Amino acid sequence: MSSIRKPGLSVNRQRLIYLPLGGAGEIGMNAYVYGYGEPNKERFILVDLGITFPDMDSTPGVNLILPDLAWLEERADRLEAIFISHAHEDHVGALPLLWEDLRAPVYARPFVAEIARRKFEEYSVAQEGLRTTEIWPHQIEAGPFTVSFIPLSHSVPESSSLSIQTPAGHVIHTGDFKLDSSPVVGDAFDEQLWQQVSADGVQALVCDSTNVFVTRSGRSEGKLSPAIEELIQSSKGVVVATTFASNIARLKTLADAGTRAGRSICLLGRAMRRMIEAAKETGILSNFPTVISPSEAALIPRENLMLLVTGSQGEPRAVSAQLSVGRYKNIDLVAGDLFLFSSKTIPGNEKAVLKIINNLSRKGVAVIDDSSDRFHVSGHANQPDLERIHTIVDPKIVIPMHGERRHLEQHVTMCREGGREAIVAANGMMIDLTNEVPKVAETVPSGRMYFDGDVLIPARDGVVRDRIRMALNGLVAVSVVQTKSSKPVFRCSVVIRGLWQGENGFVMKVALETELNKSIGRLSGQVLHDDEELEEAIRRCVRKETVNLIGKRPEVSVIITRIA
Amino acid sequence: MSSIRKPGLSVNRQRLIYLPLGGAGEIGMNAYVYGYGEPNKERFILVDLGITFPDMDSTPGVNLILPDLAWLEERADRLEAIFISHAHEDHVGALPLLWEDLRAPVYARPFVAEIARRKFEEYSVAQEGLRTTEIWPHQIEAGPFTVSFIPLSHSVPESSSLSIQTPAGHVIHTGDFKLDSSPVVGDAFDEQLWQQVSADGVQALVCDSTNVFVTRSGRSEGKLSPAIEELIQSSKGVVVATTFASNIARLKTLADAGTRAGRSICLLGRAMRRMIEAAKETGILSNFPTVISPSEAALIPRENLMLLVTGSQGEPRAVSAQLSVGRYKNIDLVAGDLFLFSSKTIPGNEKAVLKIINNLSRKGVAVIDDSSDRFHVSGHANQPDLERIHTIVDPKIVIPMHGERRHLEQHVTMCREGGREAIVAANGMMIDLTNEVPKVAETVPSGRMYFDGDVLIPARDGVVRDRIRMALNGLVAVSVVQTKSSKPVFRCSVVIRGLWQGENGFVMKVALETELNKSIGRLSGQVLHDDEELEEAIRRCVRKETVNLIGKRPEVSVIITRIA
Repeated sequence: MSSIRKPGLSVNRQRLIYLPLGGAGEIGMNAYVYGYGEPNKERFILVDLGITFPDMDSTPGVNLILPDLAWLEERADRLEAIFISHAHEDHVGALPLLWEDLRAPVYARPFVAEIARRKFEEYSVAQEGLRTTEIWPHQIEAGPFTVSFIPLSHSVPESSSLSIQTPAGHVIHTGDFKLDSSPVVGDAFDEQLWQQVSADGVQALVCDSTNVFVTRSGRSEGKLSPAIEELIQSSKGVVVATTFASNIARLKTLADAGTRAGRSICLLGRAMRRMIEAAKETGILSNFPTVISPSEAALIPRENLMLLVTGSQGEPRAVSAQLSVGRYKNIDLVAGDLFLFSSKTIPGNEKAVLKIINNLSRKGVAVIDDSSDRFHVSGHANQPDLERIHTIVDPKIVIPMHGERRHLEQHVTMCREGGREAIVAANGMMIDLTNEVPKVAETVPSGRMYFDGDVLIPARDGVVRDRIRMALNGLVAVSVVQTKSSKPVFRCSVVIRGLWQGENGFVMKVALETELNKSIGRLSGQVLHDDEELEEAIRRCVRKETVNLIGKRPEVSVIITRIA
Repeated sequence: MSSIRKPGLSVNRQRLIYLPLGGAGEIGMNAYVYGYGEPNKERFILVDLGITFPDMDSTPGVNLILPDLAWLEERADRLEAIFISHAHEDHVGALPLLWEDLRAPVYARPFVAEIARRKFEEYSVAQEGLRTTEIWPHQIEAGPFTVSFIPLSHSVPESSSLSIQTPAGHVIHTGDFKLDSSPVVGDAFDEQLWQQVSADGVQALVCDSTNVFVTRSGRSEGKLSPAIEELIQSSKGVVVATTFASNIARLKTLADAGTRAGRSICLLGRAMRRMIEAAKETGILSNFPTVISPSEAALIPRENLMLLVTGSQGEPRAVSAQLSVGRYKNIDLVAGDLFLFSSKTIPGNEKAVLKIINNLSRKGVAVIDDSSDRFHVSGHANQPDLERIHTIVDPKIVIPMHGERRHLEQHVTMCREGGREAIVAANGMMIDLTNEVPKVAETVPSGRMYFDGDVLIPARDGVVRDRIRMALNGLVAVSVVQTKSSKPVFRCSVVIRGLWQGENGFVMKVALETELNKSIGRLSGQVLHDDEELEEAIRRCVRKETVNLIGKRPEVSVIITRIA
């Protein structure tokens, strides 16, 4: 029995919703939808459109992982605009790959827009949607939304929070941030500005959760310089430092310290050169030291050289990995050189980074990693900083984002312990923010897409699962040829991939073919005439025999050819 | 021109050598050879025979990784004995798989021998070589070697160093160790004993390097109890703790603390039950609390239950992972329960462990990991402890082992800074220890074997590399059937694995077959008649077309069948 509803009430049935389609319950591929309007007629904006990087465990061979936006794509006519909070891959990397399915204007600050522009170019996608915008108090109207970029510090310049005004109240989406009063490059945290922005009351703060488990206050980028300079001064050989290419402030800190220590600076790695280039072009980096080319670098005394290189996460093709095993552009490292990881290793990359450290150690290069905590600071707000921003903004509701499930849960716990309303919203959970208490309104399909070769595949298609099975089990491909139709004669030939092939005269291939040709002779006419049954019989026979011979159950692919 | 040698000198040409075939330059698959005698006529002993665990990055589908002992197997007639220092997998795990190729007597202390016995049984290998032995001053004669087990603490009971007396001097092989005066179970560090053993001078100390980068002194296992008990007391729900199954002392600390907090103890996971069983059988664990069965556990109040479970490294089939996603033997975890990782995450396992933590968080279970450093201590000697053992033993030479390259290098640096002779010896480097200064005598082949299914494959065979290629690139198998010989007619059929299959009516398989059948018509008669050339032409065509269609270069397997 449905309850009686007075017609007048329907006027107020507009709702404000928040819907993460990526980035909530994971660190990566951020994509957050906000909607306002009558249910199923809301107008939308999208904040960020990022990627996640694949790994061998779960996504071998995949280039990039993207959020599956099928839900939003079906409603693309209701999408007013896309806003990009900052220039990190997990916030902007999917834009060129998914924009054509959304076709809404994309707003970003100049440096962020320049990075996005280069991405569109790289994928040969028209960049007609891209709009460069100013910060608060400048406002962008997007349907029922009025949006402003609020500058905030992070580990890449021009990071911003978004102030999202709606008829149902004011939402602040922090983006990735830290509270840094001396960020070296980019905008310092301006408490007064934040008080101003929040002055009229904030309905919901959608907030970065990355460092919620770190109980000390965050440290400023500006504090790193003395330790780094001291370290560089102490070295008599080449000094190499690696960090994220997008961490322009860190690159400046490193380069300035190197210059003061009497060293020429050489940038190695395409990503790093391009980032510095974009930062200079957009005017956010004006006083970076002059850099020398790799061929100039090879000519100057080792104690006068400092290299800034890509590959802080152990990426095998980046410069750090290359330098650890041999020359890179005529530069090689030797005993007495110093290698600094001015970076934190992202979980999952430990083995790759340790491989580089071991290879450098073999060369006698001294390696300084992040364990001392003196040469790197995080770009995310720690627990006390999160509490501070909650207090300044004083929202009715906090919604943790940008975190794995454990981060989101901890962030909610922290809020509730402080007497503040909060809710865990994971990818696909549509949260109704209209009232005092947030509620899960619906759960919509969400997931991942793989950019593989140059096609986009939904993760659920099983293509990559099939690869993993081949990697774990090996594969036997069988060709079955029926040479006569009256009294059928069959010939089976196999090819074996990723399995032991035999030794001392024993040949797996011959053993399998012999067994197959024998067992096919025992099959009934009905099985022999039915492709599906024949295939299944062949598969069973190969598996049984392979388990028997080497204890593995391989993948089996069967190709049946019947001649007239 | 060869130098003139006086015949008399050859009498003294006996040498003492150390040759790691596993464990030096890596943490895992320990296998250390010592030899004494004339060059190429030395008699040998082998210390430890362990495994390494595979991973998806480099060894998908492999069960276990073992040292390649081909060099030693060719000289097995000169092998006098095998000594197992302790019961960890990386020291004893390869014994049942490689023993039949070595067939030397295996010496181990009672608990270690019991673990080895169970391993032989598991692989149905005769355990005729196994000899249970006593500790120092008991001596084992093995050709020119006189060997004693010197008790020392580690994270598994009955860990031992080996005192190896030779005509060329005394070698001490530490095995894995820490200096613990209250190890809860097993032998405390006995400085007096060590002074006694080292009293007559030690030529070489071959020394654990695992924790050489940790600059504080190691902490005792005995100190953990109060923090653990306090934590358990604080919980109102089920308390679950996980650690390595072989860490009997930790299991006892945890179980005792649970019992004192009024909880019944339940062991979950085969490895854990078996380890406790072996420890009780061999008398090294006499006062472990009574444990209850899983069905009993399901019946008692949550606040009176403590589970000790396997899977501290995130192993997907172990109990921790199972409990994090659902029930395990009728026990499930709910909000208010507590899960303690009384363990350190081994590099490479971070993602798997975090997955469990995220799943537990989703259930509302409070998770305590190793970040606080209050609920776990390492089983390895830290830098100050290494210095202490160097001082006590006062060897002429230190040879670091049980470490990645960076650990070995750092350990050597530490020795040299203290004025002590040391040398980096990686797997395959035969070190001559006869004189004051150690020298690399030869480099012998070393490497890895994969236990895959139930066969042993040398890593260099490329079987696993082939699997990785399929995982990265996908695979197209092509059957080419030549149906007539006079004027040959060909039919190509393909099967596609791990690649996009098409959508909206476009079918990859059909597109590839069409292209193949078309291009085969353009091949010259010479190519068509030569299997190798035909195969290569087909492979090229498939790759070109697949790059064209989806931007991937797949693996291609071709099976040619020619009908008379």
